[in-house]
Amino acid sequence: MDPFIDLHSRTGKSEPKHHKATLFQGTQLMLGVNCLEPGQVQRVHTHAHQDKFYFVVEGEGTFTVGDRTQAAGPGTVVLAPAEVEHGVENTGTVRLTLFMGMAPPPPS
Amino acid sequence: MDPFIDLHSRTGKSEPKHHKATLFQGTQLMLGVNCLEPGQVQRVHTHAHQDKFYFVVEGEGTFTVGDRTQAAGPGTVVLAPAEVEHGVENTGTVRLTLFMGMAPPPPS
Repeated sequence: MDPFIDLHSRTGKSEPKHHKATLFQGTQLMLGVNCLEPGQVQRVHTHAHQDKFYFVVEGEGTFTVGDRTQAAGPGTVVLAPAEVEHGVENTGTVRLTLFMGMAPPPPS
Repeated sequence: MDPFIDLHSRTGKSEPKHHKATLFQGTQLMLGVNCLEPGQVQRVHTHAHQDKFYFVVEGEGTFTVGDRTQAAGPGTVVLAPAEVEHGVENTGTVRLTLFMGMAPPPPS
């Protein structure tokens, strides 16, 4: 395993669903990248057992976490602990690039 | 708990040891920020049970992971699974800001 990963080497565009790539899958942690083009949505959903985060690298999105909905841009950490519903829409004009992780990894 | 955290609101300078702040501590995941001023070092160490990552937000550092030593800048994910030794030195000229996480959280 290469311990050094350039996030931008794993970004991309996918349609109709947004781009997803796994960067690391361990026994206790998974890390990935999500890219949403303008208008793309990751629907609100819940992980029963996983603590999850998004870190906004580029672009801007409108995130829903529990009963909160808020726009967030680069440098924002968005937290969605287990059982808390969460989703995101790219409400900006450029690609939204998110570094994300879950602990423990979701069942494959 | 506020699910939205601006990483830059939790950065800072500390001496002689580098700045550390916890952003989230759950049962399965902890997230934090580390800031190293030029020349500051996080010595090589190991977590027996935690999978850990660093994500370089700003600046440049020289990371050691296992038998690899490599410079890394913004957008690089650095992976240090459990039992793999790791450390970092700010070998650049500006503050090195790292978003980091561990799963499970280390004992307090």
